[in-house]
Amino acid sequence: MKLNNKIQFIRIIPILLLILIVSCKKEMPAQNKVNTEVSKSSDHPKLILTKAGVNLIKKELGNIPIFDNSLKEIQAEVDTEIELGIETPIPKDFSGGYTHARHKRNFLIMQKAGVLYQILDDEKYAKYVKDMLMQYEAMYKTLPVHPQTRSYARGKLFWQCLNDSNWLVYVSQAYDCIYNYLSKEEREKLETNLFRPFADFISIENPQFYNRVHNHSTWGNAAVGMIGLVMGDEELVKRALYGIENDGLEAGAKDNDGGFIKNKDGKAGFLANIEEPFSPDGYYTEGPYYQRYAMYPFLIFAQGLHNVKPDLKIFEFKDSVLLKAVDALINLSDADGEFFPLNDGQKGMSYYTSSLVSSVDIAYHFGGNNPELLSIAEKQNKVTLDDAGLSVALGIKNKKTKPFTKKSIELRDGPKGNQGAVGILRSGALELVYKYPGHGLSHGHFDKLSFSLYENGEEVIQDYGLVRFVNIEQKGGGNYLKENKTWAKQTIAHNTLVQNEKSHFQGKYEIGSKHHSEKYVFHVENENIQIASAKEKNAYPGTIMHRTMVIIKDNEFTNSLVLDIMRVVSDNKNQYDLPFYYLGQLIQTNFNYKTLNFLTQLGNSDGYQHLYLEGSGDATGENIKLNWLHNNKFYTLTSITSNKDELLLARIGATDPEFNLRREPTFIIRKKNTQNALFVSTIESHGTYSPVSEFAVNAYSNIKNLEVTFNNSEYTAIRIEYINGKIALFILANNNASKEAEHTLKINEKNYTWKGSYYYK
Amino acid sequence: MKLNNKIQFIRIIPILLLILIVSCKKEMPAQNKVNTEVSKSSDHPKLILTKAGVNLIKKELGNIPIFDNSLKEIQAEVDTEIELGIETPIPKDFSGGYTHARHKRNFLIMQKAGVLYQILDDEKYAKYVKDMLMQYEAMYKTLPVHPQTRSYARGKLFWQCLNDSNWLVYVSQAYDCIYNYLSKEEREKLETNLFRPFADFISIENPQFYNRVHNHSTWGNAAVGMIGLVMGDEELVKRALYGIENDGLEAGAKDNDGGFIKNKDGKAGFLANIEEPFSPDGYYTEGPYYQRYAMYPFLIFAQGLHNVKPDLKIFEFKDSVLLKAVDALINLSDADGEFFPLNDGQKGMSYYTSSLVSSVDIAYHFGGNNPELLSIAEKQNKVTLDDAGLSVALGIKNKKTKPFTKKSIELRDGPKGNQGAVGILRSGALELVYKYPGHGLSHGHFDKLSFSLYENGEEVIQDYGLVRFVNIEQKGGGNYLKENKTWAKQTIAHNTLVQNEKSHFQGKYEIGSKHHSEKYVFHVENENIQIASAKEKNAYPGTIMHRTMVIIKDNEFTNSLVLDIMRVVSDNKNQYDLPFYYLGQLIQTNFNYKTLNFLTQLGNSDGYQHLYLEGSGDATGENIKLNWLHNNKFYTLTSITSNKDELLLARIGATDPEFNLRREPTFIIRKKNTQNALFVSTIESHGTYSPVSEFAVNAYSNIKNLEVTFNNSEYTAIRIEYINGKIALFILANNNASKEAEHTLKINEKNYTWKGSYYYK
Repeated sequence: MKLNNKIQFIRIIPILLLILIVSCKKEMPAQNKVNTEVSKSSDHPKLILTKAGVNLIKKELGNIPIFDNSLKEIQAEVDTEIELGIETPIPKDFSGGYTHARHKRNFLIMQKAGVLYQILDDEKYAKYVKDMLMQYEAMYKTLPVHPQTRSYARGKLFWQCLNDSNWLVYVSQAYDCIYNYLSKEEREKLETNLFRPFADFISIENPQFYNRVHNHSTWGNAAVGMIGLVMGDEELVKRALYGIENDGLEAGAKDNDGGFIKNKDGKAGFLANIEEPFSPDGYYTEGPYYQRYAMYPFLIFAQGLHNVKPDLKIFEFKDSVLLKAVDALINLSDADGEFFPLNDGQKGMSYYTSSLVSSVDIAYHFGGNNPELLSIAEKQNKVTLDDAGLSVALGIKNKKTKPFTKKSIELRDGPKGNQGAVGILRSGALELVYKYPGHGLSHGHFDKLSFSLYENGEEVIQDYGLVRFVNIEQKGGGNYLKENKTWAKQTIAHNTLVQNEKSHFQGKYEIGSKHHSEKYVFHVENENIQIASAKEKNAYPGTIMHRTMVIIKDNEFTNSLVLDIMRVVSDNKNQYDLPFYYLGQLIQTNFNYKTLNFLTQLGNSDGYQHLYLEGSGDATGENIKLNWLHNNKFYTLTSITSNKDELLLARIGATDPEFNLRREPTFIIRKKNTQNALFVSTIESHGTYSPVSEFAVNAYSNIKNLEVTFNNSEYTAIRIEYINGKIALFILANNNASKEAEHTLKINEKNYTWKGSYYYK
Repeated sequence: MKLNNKIQFIRIIPILLLILIVSCKKEMPAQNKVNTEVSKSSDHPKLILTKAGVNLIKKELGNIPIFDNSLKEIQAEVDTEIELGIETPIPKDFSGGYTHARHKRNFLIMQKAGVLYQILDDEKYAKYVKDMLMQYEAMYKTLPVHPQTRSYARGKLFWQCLNDSNWLVYVSQAYDCIYNYLSKEEREKLETNLFRPFADFISIENPQFYNRVHNHSTWGNAAVGMIGLVMGDEELVKRALYGIENDGLEAGAKDNDGGFIKNKDGKAGFLANIEEPFSPDGYYTEGPYYQRYAMYPFLIFAQGLHNVKPDLKIFEFKDSVLLKAVDALINLSDADGEFFPLNDGQKGMSYYTSSLVSSVDIAYHFGGNNPELLSIAEKQNKVTLDDAGLSVALGIKNKKTKPFTKKSIELRDGPKGNQGAVGILRSGALELVYKYPGHGLSHGHFDKLSFSLYENGEEVIQDYGLVRFVNIEQKGGGNYLKENKTWAKQTIAHNTLVQNEKSHFQGKYEIGSKHHSEKYVFHVENENIQIASAKEKNAYPGTIMHRTMVIIKDNEFTNSLVLDIMRVVSDNKNQYDLPFYYLGQLIQTNFNYKTLNFLTQLGNSDGYQHLYLEGSGDATGENIKLNWLHNNKFYTLTSITSNKDELLLARIGATDPEFNLRREPTFIIRKKNTQNALFVSTIESHGTYSPVSEFAVNAYSNIKNLEVTFNNSEYTAIRIEYINGKIALFILANNNASKEAEHTLKINEKNYTWKGSYYYK
């Protein structure tokens, strides 16, 4: 180096030093991740809220209406609770009872108070959380398991570990928010006497609860993992992700809700709980009601993992299935945002629930800012008070919103997407939900190939849902009622075929959970004819059911109509019942029936004991029609019958000693002593009534006649004659779903040629 | 006369002549009234629209949003119909059927087209009306009576004269609007072959229909009167106002709907139809559903009379009862504007119906511009296209609207207001409708002292309403179904006392229509304790019922509660049933009951044959509680029982071979073999449930105990103990309703002293 160069080098030393210092500063956070002690004292919040996020929130506050309003609402709620004072009663009640509701409220409020402390810098919120946590710490040390003995895994604060896990998922967030507010001694006290024993209790001491593939376990996993992330406890985080290693549970052991405890591979923990119940389409095998419930622990823990352990790339896990699941769930809701009550689902649950607020916010923030999600957030009219919620609030403020358009969609079931599916057909105001997936774990119903129909978000042909009044203590402590098993899960409670008055798979979970229906055709590219078709070969050994549901749109009529073809092929003669759970007032039938003077149960088991037979008639072999009025709309079911068919008018509610069931009607087409059967029906929404103008418009069906013009193992053809003289023919190829296959069929001396699985003209 | 004066006189001749001419001109209109010929050619429209009104409308058009929108809507509707072409099919169907609906639509559209012609000066509308009228003229000449034979007074265009009268009421207006568009010959043709024979047919040829005091007759009177006003036919107008003089009907003769044909004084016609069924408070004895129906002919004919025969001062008749009736009717609607279904009322009918649009507009325009009516008009969001509608539109435009606040109100029944009343108690979200008026003519139900309860416009304890699906042809041609008589009119179908399973007045109209209940106390000045009390002495000879309904508001609880005291004194031992038709899902009872395995009818007659007994229990003498959930709200009925009482859980629907009845529940408290009885209950709306948050809030009753602490012929005292420890005492003086009376009563060694009919503290 020349002197000249040396002098020049000396001159740039300060610049180099500056660069070095700056780059050192940049590296600081990465170092903190390694040094747990430093992390503990300076790096919180880091779980859901982040330091950077909090700063950004503070900067934007007052300028992001939906966020500001959510903050105001939550502040009002928490302030009211703070004024009321802290109560941590000795646990005693079932869900719905006082101590249950109080502890539930406590964890919800603690989480909110923690967030308020971070955003508003007001110590009263931190103190409230701290004081309450200390009360819990004092109580928990000596707390026995909950006195109510109904659960297979009793908690301590609540009657089941599930709810204890809920508590810890929320409290972890609160703890993270006030972490730095607490002294080291206070933290040690809480962690040693409360959090760690709490985490151990719901996991190690309850492996049957914790190590399962089940939405309950997901809550357990998330609880243990989230407190682990906050405490910087790698062992807990590992236990959360992968389960307990040696759980001592037998393979094949069953829980008292009928579900298997361990999955086939013996995998457990959070990742297994994503891996197995979610299909590649984001469908959660238990159904939307439980998916909605599980979404919160899935996404909130994922968010924490993303923030604290970004290397895990949790949101990319299994081809980003957690983010897809949010989309799937929105698609599993009706026009009002209420989830279809597949399996054990309570009606009325919707995407307005708080777990969907966080799901939508997280999916938007971490899933590429899909502007359609903003329209759901706008309807929800609230956001979470964290980085994700801020992101949504900014998106809305910057007018990026686009409408979320729900279209016809097939959501495959099974970890690999090859275990059947739920097919949703949408056309105009109609939504048809057709169910041909796997069993749905312990919350599954025995209802292969069942369907339900909605118009403008109102049920027309209903799926009963569960028999439970969640959190209504008067009804069995708010828990599942016995009619859930004796009625809601049974096949006859659904709009599908029952053979010989026995439920599918003998109503046995061990059998049902081994099988799934097979998708045959799902074709919705043509908006005038949307079709979903599937087969079920295992529900009744020796019998194959093949049901095809079509929504036909014809601009000559106000509304689309549903064509329903249920083709049954069996080795034996059987009795087949096909019920339609129409909702509303029966207006007229075109067949004669006699009502009964004494109502009694229709059968003795498999749910039949819960139906009253109100009346019955014999089909004449002509089309039968049932016309009814619901929500001031006229509907008609038209069915092709044989003159041996029985027509049953029944009602739910028999042998229901505590009035747990709703007294709602059904119409059952019964074919007795029949080997192969073909049920063909149309369901129309054809008219309206106004009690104000008292005008009845289009009160009658538009169908003049339905006829089977061809039916063998290869093809089934249905001729539809409308009252306006129009005639249409629908032909289905029964054994070739290929879109490319070429077909020719001669019916009544006329040749029909087409490509693909069906013909309609 | 001096020459000079003469010259001066000659000079002023032209001036005098001028004065004479001017004054003659002034007199012209008065002369025209006498000279029918002149009137016919120059004075139209004059019936509902007036020349002056039309000019004012034209001036304001485009500047009165609610009117402009109504005009646009009606224009679109009429234009569509004009494009579809004119159809006047040969009459054939019942209401609900095609020919019925078509002729109904025709008269509605003709009236609208007439108005459009006046306002828009577009001849196509006049031509449309003319062409259609000419088709009717051609048809009517040879038209026989309607082929359907069900009515006691068959029409020609429709199955009953009532609907023919509807037709003429509307068509009169259309004719008035195009009167000057038609040539004299055309008018003569229509009047000679259509209008006069039409008016004669519904009056002279159907005296049993026309000369009655009944809403049907009101339509007949208005129809004859309105066409008379347009045609300038004094004889028809007189026939409208006073009925047919010698109708040949026997006094005391009954119609086949059970009603008396003639009233006691033998009066008939429009004025009698105002005089008798309207009470001084504007309550129409048939109830709000029929009042709503009758309001249109009452007010539209009144409007015509006001315009053409102002000297009659029709709006001042009977102390302006027609205008008061509009106010009464609005007060007879729930929070959503739906009329309480007293007597034969179809649920869902509301003040959004077109007859209420015109009623509100007319009452505003002719009744002193009450700004509260504008708020109803704003909700209706439409106005009539006439002088009254313009007046409302201007009022709204000029921001004169004030809210219509529905308060507690007692609407007396009877021509003189001394035949009982309907008492409506309103407190917070609750509305209680208590019925103690006269029978209500042929549409009356046998339900003395019955009540119904609403919360936020939703039924909580329902009144069943009628059994009819108006204009739904499939259900008995849209007419009354036989269950209206066997169920809806019977006492057990209502929330009131049934003695020995027999309806009030033996279910006989001849007896029931002779009596009315007696108002005892109606006191609503204190918003914390609103009370309506009445007695019924004739429903069961030898038995006196005294029911007191109180709404108690206590700020310690979220909602007000209802206290219901039914005191029965009898000469004999009887069985007493008191039903409560709660709507919703039974959640819990505090008494044991057994459900039945076989459901059958509860009794054999008087409506009992339409109830299924689902379960029953025995009271223990403690308070019994029935807790239910409806529209996500929790309700509890608490009742004082004796240990001999039976508790019945029943459901509507037995012996209902055509599913005409809704399967809805009831709870019946039965006291057997009892002479004097005291039923005391509270009904609370105490909590809420959200299927989205799944929180149940205040799911249990706030009442700890109800107790009768005193009961004799003078006083009844009820002690109410709340779960929060608060204790209240309600005492009613049973035989002294005076507000001034001083009372002292010793209960359990304590003296209570008060002034007025009741004590509450």
